[in-house]
Amino acid sequence: MSEFRLIDRYFTAATTPRADVVVGIGDDAAILQPPAGQQMVVATDTLVAGVHFPLDTTAEAIGYKALAVNLSDLAAMGATPAWALLALTLPEQAPQWLTGFMAGFSSLAEQFNVALVGGDTTRGPLTITVQIIGHVPAGAALTRGGARSGDRIFVTGKLGDAALALHALSDGGCGREDLKADFRERLDFPTPRIAAGTLLRSKASSAIDVSDGLIADLGHILTASGVGARVVRDRIPRSERFLACLSAGGVDAQTGWQIALAGGDDYELCFTIPEKDGDEMLGRDWSVCNGITEIGVITAEKGLQLVDLAGQPVPFVNTGGYDHFS
Amino acid sequence: MSEFRLIDRYFTAATTPRADVVVGIGDDAAILQPPAGQQMVVATDTLVAGVHFPLDTTAEAIGYKALAVNLSDLAAMGATPAWALLALTLPEQAPQWLTGFMAGFSSLAEQFNVALVGGDTTRGPLTITVQIIGHVPAGAALTRGGARSGDRIFVTGKLGDAALALHALSDGGCGREDLKADFRERLDFPTPRIAAGTLLRSKASSAIDVSDGLIADLGHILTASGVGARVVRDRIPRSERFLACLSAGGVDAQTGWQIALAGGDDYELCFTIPEKDGDEMLGRDWSVCNGITEIGVITAEKGLQLVDLAGQPVPFVNTGGYDHFS
Repeated sequence: MSEFRLIDRYFTAATTPRADVVVGIGDDAAILQPPAGQQMVVATDTLVAGVHFPLDTTAEAIGYKALAVNLSDLAAMGATPAWALLALTLPEQAPQWLTGFMAGFSSLAEQFNVALVGGDTTRGPLTITVQIIGHVPAGAALTRGGARSGDRIFVTGKLGDAALALHALSDGGCGREDLKADFRERLDFPTPRIAAGTLLRSKASSAIDVSDGLIADLGHILTASGVGARVVRDRIPRSERFLACLSAGGVDAQTGWQIALAGGDDYELCFTIPEKDGDEMLGRDWSVCNGITEIGVITAEKGLQLVDLAGQPVPFVNTGGYDHFS
Repeated sequence: MSEFRLIDRYFTAATTPRADVVVGIGDDAAILQPPAGQQMVVATDTLVAGVHFPLDTTAEAIGYKALAVNLSDLAAMGATPAWALLALTLPEQAPQWLTGFMAGFSSLAEQFNVALVGGDTTRGPLTITVQIIGHVPAGAALTRGGARSGDRIFVTGKLGDAALALHALSDGGCGREDLKADFRERLDFPTPRIAAGTLLRSKASSAIDVSDGLIADLGHILTASGVGARVVRDRIPRSERFLACLSAGGVDAQTGWQIALAGGDDYELCFTIPEKDGDEMLGRDWSVCNGITEIGVITAEKGLQLVDLAGQPVPFVNTGGYDHFS
């Protein structure tokens, strides 16, 4: 089958209609009508087989995740996603794989009203690059650079499930075999926190998505903002299933903290709120992101201090997050 | 060196400043201010080592070409380029290679006032995906679908040099060893026809860039427009150096036509102009694209007829262009 037929068959069928797509898939480029009064927000992320997902990952999960990690970048900016481009490098013609891949991609695209407007299909080692374009009211976007001393630090949802899935895969268990499939689901199908990001527009002083681990990603906020932070380790939210593995002895306490603090792939948001606005933010309905949790405070003194509930320093290994070239 | 330091060192330094970049490299996504009254034009193209460029291609040429093929897509739409994202998958940390790659990329970015606003660096087999975003006055973009019976068909520049470079590489010669470096230059450093595309806005009834070969790419116009074409083979413009190889006997006459008709990688534009506007277009200054040449006419009857100067049919092998999965 020709490249052109491939594109026609799998991609054109997979797109969500949007009135602002003037020309979509099938020309040299797509033509898009940007909404008035909005700024464009653009990001790109690549997934490499065996690096960004285990080799046994299903085609559907790969298609889902390729879009999800990009949506997560827009969530961290408070942006509304609109259009995506897909650059797919495949080792061989594989209709069944492509069908699964596009099913995963499209299910998420439909959920967030994202139109697939173009792409490129090439032959080579399996690599997937998605470019996402969204928009945000002018001036309302969230960045990494606005955290100030005294700001309160929050995270959405729970941390550590995705990294515990990888731990369970590599070590052969997490103490609760019956929960492994649930953890794998969290690794393969993360929920982009678009809804939470939208609620944070013009409210959060900074935001980032937790892709490389809380310590590493909060570290990016601290660097960009020129501040430090004190984080209460024991406030890091972990899921019921995560705690069940700890109770079962499948993971020791120290490893359990390390996974929640430095494990990546959760795609929750970490954000800061000016001190005076914190209570109001906590009082909102955060059911869209499985709740939010206050975990610490921004300090004028640089560096990250990790403490227990009594305020005593606790150890952690700063792995620096996932680093492809370290 | 960490991924983050890599990005800082090579990419941030490589970008062209633009006032419409609100947030560039270094956050979860870039924030861009689209120009009022314009539509956005977006495309993506991937280069895979050994597939889209010979393995001996210099880092500088790869960096240049990765951006050039994307700019060529915008040229075919009549768009003005503005912003690019770079997704780079590298097998290893290679500072020298990256320096050369970014030198090639940046030289072209600067020439076309393109800001590099984001990207992703991952470890894996060498693959380069660029996403380009440009803009065009609302309604002025060129597409593949507007050619009508009687429209005159043109191409910019000369065709076949890039394919002759590949032919010379694989067969060990083109009859003129002294010209091989010139051909390789045309293959490695194609000129995106942005200036020509801009001149064609609201004028051409259809346009496409010749990346897969004239027959294949004109074929896309014919399919999208629901028309046919009669092309005079002997009017296909070929360079002086191309004709010198033919004279020297390095390439036989039939192969010479085949290369010019079906060879790709020239990144010239093929476009159609309504019959009544053709003379005016021919009279313009086309020095920005090394001239334009009229090569045929759009017909109501579907299919592509290739004829000689006397109007007699001549043979050609329809390879369908470069097709990754055939």
